[in-house]
Amino acid sequence: MATHRIEHDAFGPVEIPADKYWGAQTQRALGVFAVGEERLPACLIHAFGLHKMAAAAANLRCGVLEARLGEAILRAADELRGGALDAHFPLTVWQTGSGTQTNMNANEVIANRANATLGQPLGSKAPVHPNDHVNASQSSNDSFPSVMHITAALEVRDRLQPALAQLRDSLRERADAFAGVLKLARTHLMDAVPTTLGQAFEGFSAQVANAVARLDDAMPRLLVLPQGGTAAGTGLNAPAGFAEAFCEEAGRLAGLAFRPNPCKVEGMAAHDALLELSGVLNVIAAAFTKIANDLRWMGSGPHCGLGELLLPDDGLTSSIMPGKRNPTIAEVMVQAAMQVAGNHVTVTMAGASGSFELNVAKPVLVYNVLQSIRLLADSARMAAARLVPGLRPVEARLARQLESPLLAVTALNPVLGYDRAAAIVRHAMARGIAPREAAVELGLLTAQAYDRLVDPRRMARGGDPGPVPGR
Amino acid sequence: MATHRIEHDAFGPVEIPADKYWGAQTQRALGVFAVGEERLPACLIHAFGLHKMAAAAANLRCGVLEARLGEAILRAADELRGGALDAHFPLTVWQTGSGTQTNMNANEVIANRANATLGQPLGSKAPVHPNDHVNASQSSNDSFPSVMHITAALEVRDRLQPALAQLRDSLRERADAFAGVLKLARTHLMDAVPTTLGQAFEGFSAQVANAVARLDDAMPRLLVLPQGGTAAGTGLNAPAGFAEAFCEEAGRLAGLAFRPNPCKVEGMAAHDALLELSGVLNVIAAAFTKIANDLRWMGSGPHCGLGELLLPDDGLTSSIMPGKRNPTIAEVMVQAAMQVAGNHVTVTMAGASGSFELNVAKPVLVYNVLQSIRLLADSARMAAARLVPGLRPVEARLARQLESPLLAVTALNPVLGYDRAAAIVRHAMARGIAPREAAVELGLLTAQAYDRLVDPRRMARGGDPGPVPGR
Amino acid sequence: MATHRIEHDAFGPVEIPADKYWGAQTQRALGVFAVGEERLPACLIHAFGLHKMAAAAANLRCGVLEARLGEAILRAADELRGGALDAHFPLTVWQTGSGTQTNMNANEVIANRANATLGQPLGSKAPVHPNDHVNASQSSNDSFPSVMHITAALEVRDRLQPALAQLRDSLRERADAFAGVLKLARTHLMDAVPTTLGQAFEGFSAQVANAVARLDDAMPRLLVLPQGGTAAGTGLNAPAGFAEAFCEEAGRLAGLAFRPNPCKVEGMAAHDALLELSGVLNVIAAAFTKIANDLRWMGSGPHCGLGELLLPDDGLTSSIMPGKRNPTIAEVMVQAAMQVAGNHVTVTMAGASGSFELNVAKPVLVYNVLQSIRLLADSARMAAARLVPGLRPVEARLARQLESPLLAVTALNPVLGYDRAAAIVRHAMARGIAPREAAVELGLLTAQAYDRLVDPRRMARGGDPGPVPGR
Amino acid sequence: MATHRIEHDAFGPVEIPADKYWGAQTQRALGVFAVGEERLPACLIHAFGLHKMAAAAANLRCGVLEARLGEAILRAADELRGGALDAHFPLTVWQTGSGTQTNMNANEVIANRANATLGQPLGSKAPVHPNDHVNASQSSNDSFPSVMHITAALEVRDRLQPALAQLRDSLRERADAFAGVLKLARTHLMDAVPTTLGQAFEGFSAQVANAVARLDDAMPRLLVLPQGGTAAGTGLNAPAGFAEAFCEEAGRLAGLAFRPNPCKVEGMAAHDALLELSGVLNVIAAAFTKIANDLRWMGSGPHCGLGELLLPDDGLTSSIMPGKRNPTIAEVMVQAAMQVAGNHVTVTMAGASGSFELNVAKPVLVYNVLQSIRLLADSARMAAARLVPGLRPVEARLARQLESPLLAVTALNPVLGYDRAAAIVRHAMARGIAPREAAVELGLLTAQAYDRLVDPRRMARGGDPGPVPGR
Repeated sequence: MATHRIEHDAFGPVEIPADKYWGAQTQRALGVFAVGEERLPACLIHAFGLHKMAAAAANLRCGVLEARLGEAILRAADELRGGALDAHFPLTVWQTGSGTQTNMNANEVIANRANATLGQPLGSKAPVHPNDHVNASQSSNDSFPSVMHITAALEVRDRLQPALAQLRDSLRERADAFAGVLKLARTHLMDAVPTTLGQAFEGFSAQVANAVARLDDAMPRLLVLPQGGTAAGTGLNAPAGFAEAFCEEAGRLAGLAFRPNPCKVEGMAAHDALLELSGVLNVIAAAFTKIANDLRWMGSGPHCGLGELLLPDDGLTSSIMPGKRNPTIAEVMVQAAMQVAGNHVTVTMAGASGSFELNVAKPVLVYNVLQSIRLLADSARMAAARLVPGLRPVEARLARQLESPLLAVTALNPVLGYDRAAAIVRHAMARGIAPREAAVELGLLTAQAYDRLVDPRRMARGGDPGPVPGR
Repeated sequence: MATHRIEHDAFGPVEIPADKYWGAQTQRALGVFAVGEERLPACLIHAFGLHKMAAAAANLRCGVLEARLGEAILRAADELRGGALDAHFPLTVWQTGSGTQTNMNANEVIANRANATLGQPLGSKAPVHPNDHVNASQSSNDSFPSVMHITAALEVRDRLQPALAQLRDSLRERADAFAGVLKLARTHLMDAVPTTLGQAFEGFSAQVANAVARLDDAMPRLLVLPQGGTAAGTGLNAPAGFAEAFCEEAGRLAGLAFRPNPCKVEGMAAHDALLELSGVLNVIAAAFTKIANDLRWMGSGPHCGLGELLLPDDGLTSSIMPGKRNPTIAEVMVQAAMQVAGNHVTVTMAGASGSFELNVAKPVLVYNVLQSIRLLADSARMAAARLVPGLRPVEARLARQLESPLLAVTALNPVLGYDRAAAIVRHAMARGIAPREAAVELGLLTAQAYDRLVDPRRMARGGDPGPVPGR
Repeated sequence: MATHRIEHDAFGPVEIPADKYWGAQTQRALGVFAVGEERLPACLIHAFGLHKMAAAAANLRCGVLEARLGEAILRAADELRGGALDAHFPLTVWQTGSGTQTNMNANEVIANRANATLGQPLGSKAPVHPNDHVNASQSSNDSFPSVMHITAALEVRDRLQPALAQLRDSLRERADAFAGVLKLARTHLMDAVPTTLGQAFEGFSAQVANAVARLDDAMPRLLVLPQGGTAAGTGLNAPAGFAEAFCEEAGRLAGLAFRPNPCKVEGMAAHDALLELSGVLNVIAAAFTKIANDLRWMGSGPHCGLGELLLPDDGLTSSIMPGKRNPTIAEVMVQAAMQVAGNHVTVTMAGASGSFELNVAKPVLVYNVLQSIRLLADSARMAAARLVPGLRPVEARLARQLESPLLAVTALNPVLGYDRAAAIVRHAMARGIAPREAAVELGLLTAQAYDRLVDPRRMARGGDPGPVPGR
Repeated sequence: MATHRIEHDAFGPVEIPADKYWGAQTQRALGVFAVGEERLPACLIHAFGLHKMAAAAANLRCGVLEARLGEAILRAADELRGGALDAHFPLTVWQTGSGTQTNMNANEVIANRANATLGQPLGSKAPVHPNDHVNASQSSNDSFPSVMHITAALEVRDRLQPALAQLRDSLRERADAFAGVLKLARTHLMDAVPTTLGQAFEGFSAQVANAVARLDDAMPRLLVLPQGGTAAGTGLNAPAGFAEAFCEEAGRLAGLAFRPNPCKVEGMAAHDALLELSGVLNVIAAAFTKIANDLRWMGSGPHCGLGELLLPDDGLTSSIMPGKRNPTIAEVMVQAAMQVAGNHVTVTMAGASGSFELNVAKPVLVYNVLQSIRLLADSARMAAARLVPGLRPVEARLARQLESPLLAVTALNPVLGYDRAAAIVRHAMARGIAPREAAVELGLLTAQAYDRLVDPRRMARGGDPGPVPGR
């Protein structure tokens, strides 16, 4: 049995592994580009399946594709969408900046697979031709960026948003559980005034809830597709109504309200919508950094750190210090966030680099966006499943925080004025005594009045200090 | 006449220039921080005026400020808002990460100015006390981030959005003027198919129109203020209803629908809303880069470049090559965009760096956001005023582009199929002839049929190629 | 035959695939971390083999390891170094920030492999114990960062430097070949004065030659290893002389002059040397961007672009525009450079994030450094092999560039002065004539004098304009 | 007295403020560019003075400038170098990307100033002409990048290196003072093994010492100047020997060993040497972040934080929490470092953006490099003067850290083996007892043996654990 077959393209014959559906242009690309190992992720390959299904359906509706060919394409593209043909996409990210080779890879695989189902040998290019039929009414110029939008939108909806919701809810649940746990707030890392552990988790939860809202806001511009622009945004060779039909079909398949970009060249020469999305991912990465860092600091020690939160044990330890427990999951979140922030710079450079009718940094741009989505989603799911629910306050330690907090005198400002409150702190520090004693020694308040005014539990609730003598 | 006066704060006496309204904490900060020269911009100082007006009005409504004091504060803060007190803000960006020194600077200037109008000497701290009255119901923890939001929102609305609208309209106007100017599109910088110069400008205009929409979407989260959180988000010492009253008063003064952050600590410990805004500014910078680069490339040469667009003459030339004209304004746009992209990374790092109840990278964060807004707005206005309206197509050069374009055979795909169209190109290149001749030589089409099918004007319009033989 | 076996660690039993050499801590890590797909690259796994060989040899020299165990470890680690055990390293980048899990993975694989060669079942941990023997005198705290340095140094020396040398030489060869090819220089993209195509390639070649020198300069600090610091830089449990012995053994194996970091904690808590290296990679990426962009612009068109350079044909074309040739390799270079620049930001954030005795962003840091090295090396090799040698000047086009260049009057500055040279340009532009005619019309020079002074070939050589009348 | 005068350039008359030395091109630039407020810093303006002195001296040596004119230029340029003419440089960073307007500004100011000293009215352009004499043998293309190198090299040598040396020494001094202060090391923020406070400061000091070495290594490539390349690197209109003479003269004035770039176009079309420098500044910023964060964490609390270090009091406090002390200087260091990291991205983009014979992002590039140098130098000086020397250990707190540290059992690894040491930790945690008791309860060691083996003071020294029973 032959290990290779010969296919022909406009430039001549090419030798291809016999068991692969890809064709001549893909094989040539493998020979030209020998850079790195980073593949375009599977979700993009699957989105190409959805895309070619929608294109075939639109072509059928527009009457530029025979039913028999269209149906064969639909079947093959559906297999692609489902993941059955992943092994036939050998190219890395490092290819032409338009993504043409991956578009041709999809065209070739679908054509060969469709012809095979129609009983024709691989490489026959008939009855289904990769360019004339699978790519009909399309160009890489409009197909690849449309797939970029489709896959990004699907990944946000199906991967990132559910993971964020899960993390938000787990943080919210802890916020409720910790609502009554008093602790000292820190500003500038320094002891400040009483608050609750619940307030901290409300802050985390609010950050993640806002992340969900930001992604919702970015979505409408992601759903705008340049499909129909074909070569250089001119729409050449696409029949009237193709863009609209494509968006309807793709929208039906994806369950997303895609609509045609009214200015095709905007969606091919620039990728502002994806750069905007990357900016939102960057915000989420910053939020994860804040949350994960706070958690590992609150869990630090436990003896010589802050030690106010116990992180769940994960069974991992040091290679030299037996039994040592480390905040491993929080460290993964922070590292993933660093990757997302760096990816965002790559996306920024890629997004700014378009010339005339085409941006030719598409593969690197979408690769980074998709990696960022994946890392954030996986981090969120991991944290929601294995980190947040197991967090426990170290009650004894937290209780000790509220013993004579120096800055509780802040509560006296409305009564004594800022300058006399400050005098109490200065006196307490100079004499090494608690502020309560200092206030009494200075004759500014009785001990009873101090206790009534300086109540950690009331202070942690903040808000209205209740009736106080006027100034 | 004394050149200096003595003021006292909680730490003792401080010598201050006699003609300055600032007080002891500001003066101490000048002594501590000797880094760089970058001032917080005037717009932020003015926003502090608005902020302290709103705070005083809210304090009056909540009954925690006597009318006489409140009114004196309102008058002084209004002067601050109007720019009359700029000379009394000597601090740079490089101060405590909470912005406390600039908040105290505002408190001190307003107190001294108010006391002066009430006939008291500077430094008397009576009847208006900087902490007890100007800062009443507030902390730097909530005031500074509220001012960050207020100034950013005002700058977006009053500076950036009008400038973007002006640029968008000027590009739109050129798109209309150039709608009928045929040219060859370029993808991968290489000759592609016919299009119009108008299409290119539609793309530019769409990018800027989308920028306006993105800013509109980011605005609602900018209008959410943490005011009322006071120390560490607890709300300590703020009367009930203060946050709501403040937002109403500030909103009335600014003409913006501010509303209280339901989770105060989120707005103090994190700055996701400003990082989101910076992400949008980053998208706009990328768009400006694309537009400015395209313009300078289209105007390149004129003899040995693309030379298809004439940029207006600005009277500037080379120091050694007399008479040389350069695309100076486009170069400024690109450089400003680079600054914005770098600023965005600073903002990202600053935004991710919060700990517990406070982010302490506030001054550097807001400084970069405001600089980015300013640079983008000024660039847009400059381009709209001095660059875009004067752009002129070089008709002769553009007309020559359409002579026998090699890839016009793309229009033959639907008729001949991709492989035969490719054969024409190969033949034309091999023989050094035009594709029209090649098509005839290969016997694929008559010259008349070629001319009917390959019509640059029709191709530039794209869309439906009209009735073509089925495949 | 059992598909799994049970291993025990300090936390209890763990089920492990029977055919894998990894142990309990690796298996636990697989369960904890479910983030992304990015593996630590093979070169790092192989460097771990070298590292554990050097550690075993040093332990033998220091007398803390029996010969029989040491030799079994040496053999197993050598297999790891050679790539035979890659399949036993399943972890991704996204693990604890110290790289502990991959260090333990190496310890476990080597112990199991060594025990297997000594006739013991997998999981026996005897006679070779992963912690007591393979990890003897070490901690992840010092081993992982030492491996980071070792693998980065090897990758620079063996992968990147040869590729850069190849690219530099290919550019140098083209510079020589193009030394006599006249063209017009462009500044600000605008026509300037005559130069040669060779000069442009000299510039490219010089950039790459400088890149080689920069890497040479960064190398000495890369060769400084924190090995011997063990837990937290204290050196606890490492025998006297271990650090020195390790560096000698590792240096002998690698052919690199490793030496102990005199301040162990510096090499564990910070990664300034790797951040410095990343900064150099960033410079190289910027250089590649410049070179690749210039090449694709010089090759642009060919009809409607600059069209002065012909890029070699790679057999790849458009999916809709048959026969279209694009500068694919240059686009890959630019995209790879964008990735490197973004990676550098990730490395910057990772490098700045250390706390106290340990930086815990090691895996993400080294992953990005190694990816950047790989992308730059592969890009350079691809360009040197497939792009640069095939570059051909388009002589006819270049010759036309020198017809009446407007700014050739620059050569008249020393004779006429700047203002009169400017007058010639103004006159030529106003009348639409060549500067030669304008000079004559203005009575400033005879045609003969003009021709003698304005000689493109002489101008391209620059330097001394020869004897000119004094000023 | 007239407030304005009229000057003429090649494009006609321009109205200029009567008291300003700048001329027509500067005035036109003011009209064209209305972007931002950021001035090119004074050090760059002064370096232009040095540059024009060196150019005049070289022109005198090469015989292309009359002595009388040359000497007048030398005198005026020396005033510029000394800072006396700063008020005559009104342009911002946001100008043509070649820096031409600032070069012309320098030419015009020097010409006018020189003519004034020779008794001629401003604007006469005689006997000293800004282009023919001040700019003789030069172009902005080579002068501006040469000034970029000169000013960066001077700023590194005169501003940054001394500040770093001061910081390094202050940290070194604290390392010595703290050499005997025991504390617990932290890895992953978690309690690890005993170490000394001195070791932490040795790490900081080593980072800064390495920073000095990195800058030393970057300097040689900074000293390579493209001067002599004139227009587009051709050397047109520069006499033989000019580049060499210029470097000698500039080197003499600056005390730096400048030398001509052997490939002029490399130094004009690319700025790899400055990007390399920015990469080193980025490393220093990362080091400052690590150091400043460690200091503020060690000083955190004091009650509810780590509280092991007392930071000097700076007299600044909270606006609402009277008496609160914050780590203000450390926060400035971190914020400045964030700016430097963002600036580095701008410099990266600027450095990668060159086209053909010229990089046209010079002003933004050098502005960011110089700002980064300034911020790092000022931060270092401030920290060395006001933060580091005043640091005091909180002895009582540090002493408590060493009570029964859980992971002291690490010292037992060589005696008991890792698994039995782990068993002690597990037993101690399960029973809530100290590891010493656990070891005894498990019958693994007597209390006496434990105390002999687990000695914090010995562990903190690390290194050889002394004779231990073999394995």
